[in-house]
Amino acid sequence: MKQIVECVPNFSEGRDAAAIDAIAQAVGAVPGVKVLDLTSDPDHHRSVLTFVGDPAACREGVLALFAAAIPRIDLTRHRGQHPRLGAVDVVPFIPIRGIDTAACVALARETAAAVAERFSVPIYLYEDAASSEERRNLSNIRKGEFEGLAEKMKLPEWKPDFGPAAPHPTAGASVIGARMPLIAYNINLGTPDLAIADRIARAIRHIGGGFRYVKAMGVELKDRGIVQVSINMTNYKKTPLHRVFECVKSEAARHGVNVVGSEIVGLTPAEALYEAAEFYLRIEKFTPEAVLETKLMGAE
Amino acid sequence: MKQIVECVPNFSEGRDAAAIDAIAQAVGAVPGVKVLDLTSDPDHHRSVLTFVGDPAACREGVLALFAAAIPRIDLTRHRGQHPRLGAVDVVPFIPIRGIDTAACVALARETAAAVAERFSVPIYLYEDAASSEERRNLSNIRKGEFEGLAEKMKLPEWKPDFGPAAPHPTAGASVIGARMPLIAYNINLGTPDLAIADRIARAIRHIGGGFRYVKAMGVELKDRGIVQVSINMTNYKKTPLHRVFECVKSEAARHGVNVVGSEIVGLTPAEALYEAAEFYLRIEKFTPEAVLETKLMGAE
Repeated sequence: MKQIVECVPNFSEGRDAAAIDAIAQAVGAVPGVKVLDLTSDPDHHRSVLTFVGDPAACREGVLALFAAAIPRIDLTRHRGQHPRLGAVDVVPFIPIRGIDTAACVALARETAAAVAERFSVPIYLYEDAASSEERRNLSNIRKGEFEGLAEKMKLPEWKPDFGPAAPHPTAGASVIGARMPLIAYNINLGTPDLAIADRIARAIRHIGGGFRYVKAMGVELKDRGIVQVSINMTNYKKTPLHRVFECVKSEAARHGVNVVGSEIVGLTPAEALYEAAEFYLRIEKFTPEAVLETKLMGAE
Repeated sequence: MKQIVECVPNFSEGRDAAAIDAIAQAVGAVPGVKVLDLTSDPDHHRSVLTFVGDPAACREGVLALFAAAIPRIDLTRHRGQHPRLGAVDVVPFIPIRGIDTAACVALARETAAAVAERFSVPIYLYEDAASSEERRNLSNIRKGEFEGLAEKMKLPEWKPDFGPAAPHPTAGASVIGARMPLIAYNINLGTPDLAIADRIARAIRHIGGGFRYVKAMGVELKDRGIVQVSINMTNYKKTPLHRVFECVKSEAARHGVNVVGSEIVGLTPAEALYEAAEFYLRIEKFTPEAVLETKLMGAE
């Protein structure tokens, strides 16, 4: 089976369409890279590029991204709503097919070393590639942002994983790592009472004693007059959709409230949906090889 | 989105490995055709080839199949357990992606015309491509088999849809058509009582008053000491898996029996599983475009 990695770099240009296009096109021109999506936000002054390829193509894609972004982005003059540390701010590698997280961690390290050497940009590894627990969380690394970076990097505990121990003058520093695909999954409740959504969110999220790979909060959907438990599923293999859904349903019932629907925002891996079908239909010995499209993708 | 049609020809050679390989390879050599599976049964003296491609590639694949099969298969000397009418016995075109049944019907008619003209083999259209209700069902067309074909074809109601009104001397006649993907879906019951599986099968199948696109029968799984409702789902879009599963569960409960599991035999389209996930997780406004793999396939 062909290995497929997804790479979702965030870079700090969300306004200049010509610069954004030039950066995306530089990545798309790398053999074996397929660009799936590009979203820019002028208020955040930031763009998110989604591309896929085998590990080597993804590494080359990231190098092409840095080569195109560094001359076009100057963080000393960059102001936007979204926190950022670098011209290429954060680059996660995500295992999609025929590859595991460990191999994506290796890919992240290898890419980080190449970027640091070629562009003299300091690199922090994060999430599953992190070199310590303190660096696992992106917001810890990004705290202080570009403006605080020179001071922060003087601290021994913030020596970068690769590259110089001082910021690149215009490109700052970058954060590279590996993580499972995220699923943004929201469950809608048949009540306008935000307190109920909040209480359920606290019950299911890791930090409150809930599922290990769940982040959640209560949200009002004012136009529909209902509330929502808004969820980030950070590892759908270990904490699957159906388990969270059933838990929310049961907690809501305790308040006399029904689950009226759910929504997946953005993309989900097919496997997360197969797993739900497998659970509810009680399918024995299911494998993705039983799916026609898996065979098709293998054949393509 | 690239159009993908699946084509599953059944041909009347299940013993001579060299002949089987030559026929499969002739199809696989057609540009744009990807062979996914080849299964031969010596007792049936029959092989089933599964391949995919765009409509034009599938049509050329079928022409290559006839060209390779006709000189290698002589039905006057063919004896096997499985009913058959022709050297290339039956050829269904199945819409998989970016194409509907109507377009596969058109493809079946166009291919049938080309086969009849090039090889002088009479062709009957069946299933969704059938020219009359009597010809929709393959077993009606095949009744009498190759041995009874010359007599049957003298009847005005059995004039073929394309080609000569008499059998090809060694290749008989062929049946070409279009149908939805079949899903072989079995539901296992926690009882050894075959009468319960039989009763539920009768309740859910079309012929007995059940779901329109369901065929079913009761089967004993002797090694496990349980019984099974063995189901063919002939249109998973109009009669979805979850509806049949929930109906079997409810009928079984009336006998005090639990559903202990289910199985999908062979391949299922991903969409059938997405549909089950959508139902049970109550997902609002789901589309296959929300699945990462759909994007990947679009990009490949």
